[in-house]
Amino acid sequence: MKQVNVAIMGLGTVGGGTYRILTENHDAILRHEGLDVRVAKVLELNVDRALKLGVKREQVASNIDEIALDPAIETVIEVMGGEEPARSFMLKCFAGGKNVVTANKECVAKHWSELEAAARKNGVGLYFEASCVGGVPIIRTLTEGMQANNIREIMGIYNGTTNYILSKMSETGASYEDALREAQQLGYAEANPTADVEGYDSMYKLSILSSLAFRTCIPYTAISREGITRITAADIEAGRELGYAVKLLAIGKRDGNRVEVRVQPTFVPKTHPLAAVSGSFNAVFVKGDMVDDVMLYGRGAGDLPTGSAIVSDVCYAAKLAEPKYPSFENTGALAPEIVIEDDYESKYYFCADCADRPGVLGQVTTVLGAHGVSLDSIIQRGQGSGVASVVFLTHATKEKSMRAALDELSEIVYVKSVIRVI
Amino acid sequence: MKQVNVAIMGLGTVGGGTYRILTENHDAILRHEGLDVRVAKVLELNVDRALKLGVKREQVASNIDEIALDPAIETVIEVMGGEEPARSFMLKCFAGGKNVVTANKECVAKHWSELEAAARKNGVGLYFEASCVGGVPIIRTLTEGMQANNIREIMGIYNGTTNYILSKMSETGASYEDALREAQQLGYAEANPTADVEGYDSMYKLSILSSLAFRTCIPYTAISREGITRITAADIEAGRELGYAVKLLAIGKRDGNRVEVRVQPTFVPKTHPLAAVSGSFNAVFVKGDMVDDVMLYGRGAGDLPTGSAIVSDVCYAAKLAEPKYPSFENTGALAPEIVIEDDYESKYYFCADCADRPGVLGQVTTVLGAHGVSLDSIIQRGQGSGVASVVFLTHATKEKSMRAALDELSEIVYVKSVIRVI
Repeated sequence: MKQVNVAIMGLGTVGGGTYRILTENHDAILRHEGLDVRVAKVLELNVDRALKLGVKREQVASNIDEIALDPAIETVIEVMGGEEPARSFMLKCFAGGKNVVTANKECVAKHWSELEAAARKNGVGLYFEASCVGGVPIIRTLTEGMQANNIREIMGIYNGTTNYILSKMSETGASYEDALREAQQLGYAEANPTADVEGYDSMYKLSILSSLAFRTCIPYTAISREGITRITAADIEAGRELGYAVKLLAIGKRDGNRVEVRVQPTFVPKTHPLAAVSGSFNAVFVKGDMVDDVMLYGRGAGDLPTGSAIVSDVCYAAKLAEPKYPSFENTGALAPEIVIEDDYESKYYFCADCADRPGVLGQVTTVLGAHGVSLDSIIQRGQGSGVASVVFLTHATKEKSMRAALDELSEIVYVKSVIRVI
Repeated sequence: MKQVNVAIMGLGTVGGGTYRILTENHDAILRHEGLDVRVAKVLELNVDRALKLGVKREQVASNIDEIALDPAIETVIEVMGGEEPARSFMLKCFAGGKNVVTANKECVAKHWSELEAAARKNGVGLYFEASCVGGVPIIRTLTEGMQANNIREIMGIYNGTTNYILSKMSETGASYEDALREAQQLGYAEANPTADVEGYDSMYKLSILSSLAFRTCIPYTAISREGITRITAADIEAGRELGYAVKLLAIGKRDGNRVEVRVQPTFVPKTHPLAAVSGSFNAVFVKGDMVDDVMLYGRGAGDLPTGSAIVSDVCYAAKLAEPKYPSFENTGALAPEIVIEDDYESKYYFCADCADRPGVLGQVTTVLGAHGVSLDSIIQRGQGSGVASVVFLTHATKEKSMRAALDELSEIVYVKSVIRVI
């Protein structure tokens, strides 16, 4: 039996869930893990919030030094979110000789190199299972379950808010705006939804997960990012007709030293396991050269699921004889041998308003053909207004050819939306 | 960097895959894990098979002592399968101070307590990630990713052979016999398919996984088991009409000290993530009290996927400062406080031949009602032969009530099949 004193910085949703788990399941964790995990202090300016959770007044700290300099604390849980003061506080904790467990994807994606260096210098650990895909133990799976593999691909739905919005649009035919409003009313989306709907949240997670999967630093700045704000009910309906669900995917692929990393709305075939992941659920699909496909599915957010990942890290850290660090050199920048692929191949869906007169479709296919883009399907519906909304599905084509074709097409038709297909 | 000398006992499908991974990915594992894993010896009576894989003649042992007593070997990989001589050989390896990594579900399920005691006595470890669900790191997920949780449920498709047969029957309308024959021709089913189709394989895996999940020994003898040999194309068709896929599920549930463990063909709603798991893929669905639902999906068998799990265990074991054992007392028997639930509640599907005359359905519903069984749906189709095949779907009912009702029903109709519904 080992006693582990922890401090929690921030008692918001995830901090509260973590506190609840450490309280309600204290005895179970003691029995199963042989760890007596005690919350020694919390850092929370809203004292009432702490007291309501059951924290004693003398355990509520208002200054980081009360935690970073307390010799009785072994591990600090950072669940404040955002870059600052989270980053500075974590650095102070490392300097004070404490392990840090964090759920902060933005801070890890932006400052991993600096944080890891500080942890190493002080002989302590940095753990962030909770930063990616909530309660789903994807980081442990990569580092402790797939050691035998070169990972070729890591791809998934990492953001519950956008998945909820897209699922709602798909189920009810709602517009993006209406689905977003409902998500906000239910607390699934924030008042300012930018971080979610523009794909920043997925981008940070992809940076962390693809770095771990490919065992080389993939900075978030290398990731091409597109959000879901331009997806229309018509796109979703066209996808359904063609046998696809629209998902915001974060995709990482590695082929030798060429790496492809992008966050984008994607048409996913209905038969693919990711197509069935709906509502606020998340999933990660990993392809190893030996194990082939593995998928993990679960709740990507929420107080208790994310708290579960945090407490898992606390237990994991407490049982290590010495801290564990990633095996790759984490400079925060792309390694010199890695090339980010910017002309990857995929099938494309696009929808365009075409003048409803003879010859227009012929012009479109001629332009596409001139750029080496061949078509798989066309769906045309007259709208009785002299303009037809036409749906095109291409065969696999290079990004740059498609871009060039679309540029030229814009002179003859109005391209309303473009979505890649896996 | 640490050198790890291993021996492989048995160079069949999984042994060959393991050898291939340790050879092809040797440098990658050295780079990523800092482990120089070398196959020092193999135990294989078929010397040609070993030589063909690239093993040198002087590395081929024909006697267990050449491995168990070799001081240079740290970890022994047991991939012979079956109870004996696997059990005796593992005991000799423990006595010789070696870790054992095994894929042998039958041997672990039947002799776990003895094997673990021998490992503990000699200060070495017993690891068996590869014994359950092939390449899917479900054991690591339970032990290193869900420490914060009391696990309420672990349920899944643990056998690729039966899932292939049921998927085939569902896709093509084939009979059980035809689908089995095709599976045998493709090498998915063995000439003697009993261990798979009668549910023994799933039962061993459920015993191991439910023990780890519920942190108490669940002996395989406590599990009620039913195979898929009586499933007909008509059952699968009826399931489809009602919105269900038929799957061989291994189900473990814990509620306080009451535990329910059973392997049985089950109607799974089409909307449930397990319904989409088809062909030779496997999946495990885990419910924790904090993390809620987590599902893992991947290849449940095959040389490289299972080899991936074995090599993962080799790396995991090599990095531990001291061996890890499950936290519960593993006596091989049910703990005194645990009660195996034998009257669990579920919905039932059953199909019966009824004489096609007035009053018979009335009699059936009266009998059901007398035993407290109420009906959700009835589908009747006349067959023009004086006999109608009628499909019944009940509301949730206790096992014992249902059994009693079916006994009494057998006096008035011919019950052809009974399948539980989740």
